Amino acid sequence: MVERYALEPLKSLWSLKSQYERWLEVELSVIRAYEELKIAPKGTYEKAKKNAYINVDKILEVEKVVDHDVIAFIKVATSKMGEEAKFFHFGLTSSDIVDTANSLALVRATKLIIEELKKLSEILLTKALNFKDLPTIGRTHGVHAEPTSFGLKFLSWHAEIERNIKRLEFAMKEISIGKLSGAVGNYANIDPEIEKLALSFLSLKPTKVATQVIPRDVHAFLIEVFALVASAIERMAVEIRHLQKTETLEVQEPFKKGQRGSSAMPHKKNPILCERLTGMSRIIRSYVNAALENIVLWHERDISHSSVERYMFPDLTTTLYYMVIKTQKLIEDLVIYPENIQKNIEITNGLVYSQRVLLKLVEKGLTREEAYKKVQEIALYCWENKTSFKDAVKKKFNLTEDEIKEIFDPKYYLRNVNKIFKRFQ
Amino acid sequence: MVERYALEPLKSLWSLKSQYERWLEVELSVIRAYEELKIAPKGTYEKAKKNAYINVDKILEVEKVVDHDVIAFIKVATSKMGEEAKFFHFGLTSSDIVDTANSLALVRATKLIIEELKKLSEILLTKALNFKDLPTIGRTHGVHAEPTSFGLKFLSWHAEIERNIKRLEFAMKEISIGKLSGAVGNYANIDPEIEKLALSFLSLKPTKVATQVIPRDVHAFLIEVFALVASAIERMAVEIRHLQKTETLEVQEPFKKGQRGSSAMPHKKNPILCERLTGMSRIIRSYVNAALENIVLWHERDISHSSVERYMFPDLTTTLYYMVIKTQKLIEDLVIYPENIQKNIEITNGLVYSQRVLLKLVEKGLTREEAYKKVQEIALYCWENKTSFKDAVKKKFNLTEDEIKEIFDPKYYLRNVNKIFKRFQ
Amino acid sequence: MVERYALEPLKSLWSLKSQYERWLEVELSVIRAYEELKIAPKGTYEKAKKNAYINVDKILEVEKVVDHDVIAFIKVATSKMGEEAKFFHFGLTSSDIVDTANSLALVRATKLIIEELKKLSEILLTKALNFKDLPTIGRTHGVHAEPTSFGLKFLSWHAEIERNIKRLEFAMKEISIGKLSGAVGNYANIDPEIEKLALSFLSLKPTKVATQVIPRDVHAFLIEVFALVASAIERMAVEIRHLQKTETLEVQEPFKKGQRGSSAMPHKKNPILCERLTGMSRIIRSYVNAALENIVLWHERDISHSSVERYMFPDLTTTLYYMVIKTQKLIEDLVIYPENIQKNIEITNGLVYSQRVLLKLVEKGLTREEAYKKVQEIALYCWENKTSFKDAVKKKFNLTEDEIKEIFDPKYYLRNVNKIFKRFQ
Amino acid sequence: MVERYALEPLKSLWSLKSQYERWLEVELSVIRAYEELKIAPKGTYEKAKKNAYINVDKILEVEKVVDHDVIAFIKVATSKMGEEAKFFHFGLTSSDIVDTANSLALVRATKLIIEELKKLSEILLTKALNFKDLPTIGRTHGVHAEPTSFGLKFLSWHAEIERNIKRLEFAMKEISIGKLSGAVGNYANIDPEIEKLALSFLSLKPTKVATQVIPRDVHAFLIEVFALVASAIERMAVEIRHLQKTETLEVQEPFKKGQRGSSAMPHKKNPILCERLTGMSRIIRSYVNAALENIVLWHERDISHSSVERYMFPDLTTTLYYMVIKTQKLIEDLVIYPENIQKNIEITNGLVYSQRVLLKLVEKGLTREEAYKKVQEIALYCWENKTSFKDAVKKKFNLTEDEIKEIFDPKYYLRNVNKIFKRFQ
Repeated sequence: MVERYALEPLKSLWSLKSQYERWLEVELSVIRAYEELKIAPKGTYEKAKKNAYINVDKILEVEKVVDHDVIAFIKVATSKMGEEAKFFHFGLTSSDIVDTANSLALVRATKLIIEELKKLSEILLTKALNFKDLPTIGRTHGVHAEPTSFGLKFLSWHAEIERNIKRLEFAMKEISIGKLSGAVGNYANIDPEIEKLALSFLSLKPTKVATQVIPRDVHAFLIEVFALVASAIERMAVEIRHLQKTETLEVQEPFKKGQRGSSAMPHKKNPILCERLTGMSRIIRSYVNAALENIVLWHERDISHSSVERYMFPDLTTTLYYMVIKTQKLIEDLVIYPENIQKNIEITNGLVYSQRVLLKLVEKGLTREEAYKKVQEIALYCWENKTSFKDAVKKKFNLTEDEIKEIFDPKYYLRNVNKIFKRFQ
Repeated sequence: MVERYALEPLKSLWSLKSQYERWLEVELSVIRAYEELKIAPKGTYEKAKKNAYINVDKILEVEKVVDHDVIAFIKVATSKMGEEAKFFHFGLTSSDIVDTANSLALVRATKLIIEELKKLSEILLTKALNFKDLPTIGRTHGVHAEPTSFGLKFLSWHAEIERNIKRLEFAMKEISIGKLSGAVGNYANIDPEIEKLALSFLSLKPTKVATQVIPRDVHAFLIEVFALVASAIERMAVEIRHLQKTETLEVQEPFKKGQRGSSAMPHKKNPILCERLTGMSRIIRSYVNAALENIVLWHERDISHSSVERYMFPDLTTTLYYMVIKTQKLIEDLVIYPENIQKNIEITNGLVYSQRVLLKLVEKGLTREEAYKKVQEIALYCWENKTSFKDAVKKKFNLTEDEIKEIFDPKYYLRNVNKIFKRFQ
Repeated sequence: MVERYALEPLKSLWSLKSQYERWLEVELSVIRAYEELKIAPKGTYEKAKKNAYINVDKILEVEKVVDHDVIAFIKVATSKMGEEAKFFHFGLTSSDIVDTANSLALVRATKLIIEELKKLSEILLTKALNFKDLPTIGRTHGVHAEPTSFGLKFLSWHAEIERNIKRLEFAMKEISIGKLSGAVGNYANIDPEIEKLALSFLSLKPTKVATQVIPRDVHAFLIEVFALVASAIERMAVEIRHLQKTETLEVQEPFKKGQRGSSAMPHKKNPILCERLTGMSRIIRSYVNAALENIVLWHERDISHSSVERYMFPDLTTTLYYMVIKTQKLIEDLVIYPENIQKNIEITNGLVYSQRVLLKLVEKGLTREEAYKKVQEIALYCWENKTSFKDAVKKKFNLTEDEIKEIFDPKYYLRNVNKIFKRFQ
Repeated sequence: MVERYALEPLKSLWSLKSQYERWLEVELSVIRAYEELKIAPKGTYEKAKKNAYINVDKILEVEKVVDHDVIAFIKVATSKMGEEAKFFHFGLTSSDIVDTANSLALVRATKLIIEELKKLSEILLTKALNFKDLPTIGRTHGVHAEPTSFGLKFLSWHAEIERNIKRLEFAMKEISIGKLSGAVGNYANIDPEIEKLALSFLSLKPTKVATQVIPRDVHAFLIEVFALVASAIERMAVEIRHLQKTETLEVQEPFKKGQRGSSAMPHKKNPILCERLTGMSRIIRSYVNAALENIVLWHERDISHSSVERYMFPDLTTTLYYMVIKTQKLIEDLVIYPENIQKNIEITNGLVYSQRVLLKLVEKGLTREEAYKKVQEIALYCWENKTSFKDAVKKKFNLTEDEIKEIFDPKYYLRNVNKIFKRFQ
């Protein structure tokens, strides 16, 4: 976890203290189930809850001797208990606790991320609506193509976030499972009924079939979706970085009062947040392969996934949370320069309307092939000589003033934009 | 594509010829829509369909001049048309064709993969049921843990394949979209109605909002799920490789008559298919990062994703298809040695029953901590001295013959297995 | 391998025929060593060479029965031999042949790549020298920073290619090893002298210690360097794509006569080669993880690396070769627009000289902190109001006309450039 | 950074405090150069050194306002200086400091890693020599192949570590560069002589040509080699895990007194360190792609690499250091069971000598093909029927008692092992 990028409540979620508390939460829910199913005497749960002792330093100390974190936890947690200790961890194996608690943590982290993504999605939709009618130049291959709606950029991001929310919900549902089926997943020393009841207290469902652990494809899937979310944010960040390039300057990342862009060059305002988000996306994506490798554990499990997850779960969720939170503000306060946007449409002297000329000529009877050749010839000439394409078209083709006017109108390109927006209502 | 791993019908799906045919399929569906919406004269579609000319060599020849594959395709495809040529590609941009056709290919490939996965899933379930009652030793960390059901291995794989089928269906639904919205996705020269109708002929839906292309998160998501499927198969392959190790020898990959395991050592029978599948999974996983990087295209699109996809789409789908097909046979014909499975349970002289002794002692009044210490002491002694743990337990603890018998019975560990299986009915 | 990106001689290098020929090359070099060391009768080598029979279809046919490609090869290769067949593959295991032949192929491919990289490096240096004295705006964060030399861009690429050539040579030396030490690498049935002599005929050295195979870290290292080369090319490609953006337009990828940029928009000239190279780099990078996973083979080897390598070796080397060849031409014929380069320097109305003003004020006695604040204030004002920074500086600070002139001179920034270039002579 | 895996001195190396101290080290070395080259007055360096003020909390506080870490650092560091402050950061840009300091940190981390790798390499060589003459079964595909020397396993690891040390030294030499060439790398406001001299105080060399930053291929290369080291360790870890499998049990990871293998099963001793190392290797490998993506920065630099490096540099170096340190002890204290090693050779009833029978028959006049068929037939029969291959060979082939004895002798396979070891003297 990188301190400077760890925001609350994600940061605390991954503290050792929180981890032990989650482990206790799981252990206690099992005791409660034992009691409800009349295996443990009445009151066991309350006593266990009251006497459970969590002390991070103590646990770490014991771990040094036993070299096993769950055993150290159990020793300390039960150290102030009486009879009720007998039901603590009864019939369970370490992974029952660790894996179920991992699910709790991941579900909670994912919920927080989804919540913030929904806000981001709203912000994007609002921006999209605000700029629906502002023409901008569409760029393909980095080269001016044809005018389009500036709002469509935001709408496209909004749609991608919406898809990702759906995927996250799908993946979160999958990970909303626990596992209390013992050392090799066969319920040798615990009844499936205990598992079902105990997990219900945690809003989790039993894993349909487990080994010692919950199968890691479930975790990998969630992480894959995290990587999609990160990439979606990177896509926005890269677009903003492009639009903020000095020659283009259609938008600008918010720049705080007192902020400095460069230690050497006082004039600089840099899209540093967008660049940071771009880098973070690399980090998140880089974990996907590790998550996939974790699936292929040996036999009824090996523990190689564990060290991976100690890095991966906190890093991924805190980083992604940071990304989402920061992107909200980024989009909300994005500085937009409509006059530059408008100006940029026209810097090619009308070339961006070439397709409309082409289609007009086809309409007038030329084959597509003929029309293409004629228009390309003039277009490339104007491009090289920086002369007006509109004038050249006027001169070369037999078109009325009205036709010319209609062809060279950026608004034309927005005529169907409302139909697109309607899909999002 | 690696020739030796390319099976039909996947192999042909990715031939240049098939690609051009898919492009034509899309172009024609648009013409059909123009006709149905009365923009093109009646009969245009039939004429275009009849006169369309696909000739791979010709197209490649033209491409050498124009350096653009779709333009070369259009030139050749319309070269024998009359008036109807005017409606060919009318209002469209190359990506409308390429991307919609890509969706068609991916949907078709995914469908084939799902179909075969369902067969595999069935095979796994059958095997699971067949071996439900066979005790085997469960292994965690590669070390004997406790007995479990041999059938549970297959059931666990079955469940993972089932999860993956669901994910694939989810991802396939996402990719079942086309895009006919022109150069920058704003329907400047085509009506959304045309798109909707044309795509319906291809069983696709319109992309809610596109740039020049369908957003690449949709493709990346599908590929991520492919990677999960590959990893699921790798997990089976690695388990079989483990179980076929000479010291273990509980199963063996089918070995054909006449097959040779080694050019040097005539006695060898090697799990080469499982090893091949393991390697293939690395290939498939390795593409995920490339697929994720493809999401972040510049502005209304850059074409950097295209070269990636020329490798990725054929490689991934043919390789995965191969993996699924081969795994079916692998599982179906897997040689299983029940006597070795049984023998292996007992090679630790009863140590694998240590938890049951522990729990019995807790039942009898010891604290978990005391019981653990006592049992561990004896267990480690027996382990080192290769003496019978059962005998030691008898000697050390005050247990009746019946209790001992009950504790050291592998069947005990299977008593809840039926409850697990019931979840899959 | 993607047909359209496979150039000769790389393409043929990976044909099945070439592979069998390399295998034969290795087998024959062993026979030659047996003969030279008087183990095989005189003339055995010549006879074996003469009677060796390579027929791709036959070998594939036999493979279908024995399910082992090397055994099939041996059967066919020796099918027309007499007594000399006894020494064919004598004391060897399949991997001796396959791995040694793999080294041959990789060394040959790498040599070809290095050769072309050297040409590319020269082209870059020439361009660097040609544009050494042309001022251009340096951009950091995509935002104008300070003027610099246009030639430095090329020089920086040249230096990176030079570093990569050195790394490639280092890695190629490592992979210039063969392995003829038998089934588990202990020379059980072959003398190390035979290996040494046979490999010397192939310009290879013995692996110091092998298992059944050459350790895969050697291959992984080479592939890692391939990925560095690909990234170096991607860096150039991305820079060109940036400089070709319509608003910037300082360079343009060569555009062939007759070429078409878009099926819809006749005016388009797109940097499609650069975009293709960008995508290819993703492909090459994506293989690194697979190559690394190949290192961890089980015991004296498992064969999981083999399927990976059937994809990876041909794909990586042909793609990289294509990239290098295409980049040569790209750089050589790059269209450069000096007037646009010059124009772009000034679009910020002098803001890019802000550091020079800052340093001048420090020289005149202000603290860095004071100077920064003053200059930033003016700079941000001019930026927002699009007014001349030069005028503002003149008005605000007590500077002579000569000082102003000196500060706002792009040439100033090039005064040390020759010193940089001297490092490359 | 994962607390529990961060060992000193690596842990402190990456503290914020150490980072600021390194930045100061770079700044002061520049001032020292200014003084030595008579640009700063005599005594400036000593004064700056004495008055420099580093206070982590203060710097973080200032950063909150200026949103730029280097500017915050400069403000605080110079806050107690007098005139000498003028030369602090004079002519430099932030990246001059950050990148040069990064090199310092990476060089220092790499040196520590190399140092420990050398110890590990020695430990491996010693083990190799100790077990040189112990026969063990060689396993290919996980299946018994032929006997070999147990010491060769260690020797093979030793050789791989040696290769990696060489690569690390090569990569470390590359990264032993700094960069003090200003905002866009053209020495606009600083003389190359200052850079050369200042860097020499830090034992670094100038980057031959930089942009605003040191080109990231240099860092990526180092990280790629880190990934090779991690994979080498993973290879050992996986082998030990295999050999510790209950059925094989030839070695055992050291197990501390008081340690507990499982919370449920008191008998368990698990190779948890090896599994942890396996997982860590996944983490380290996963960063390679991110490091490669960092190469392709925009123009004279974008800062997207920075957030990546905040995770990557500390994580990679501390984790790798941990891995090396832990592996030393693992190998040194590895529990080895020679009797099990010996026993396992014979569990196939002599099948592992099949090649020797084959070669003997060829020697006696059979063709390789005939011999293979005959031996395979018997071998597969014995395998299936678990009968003695030695007896079958005796019965079937006309071999003397001495020939049989010679063929079925594991020592035979070690006869050339000394020749391999000689290569390492």
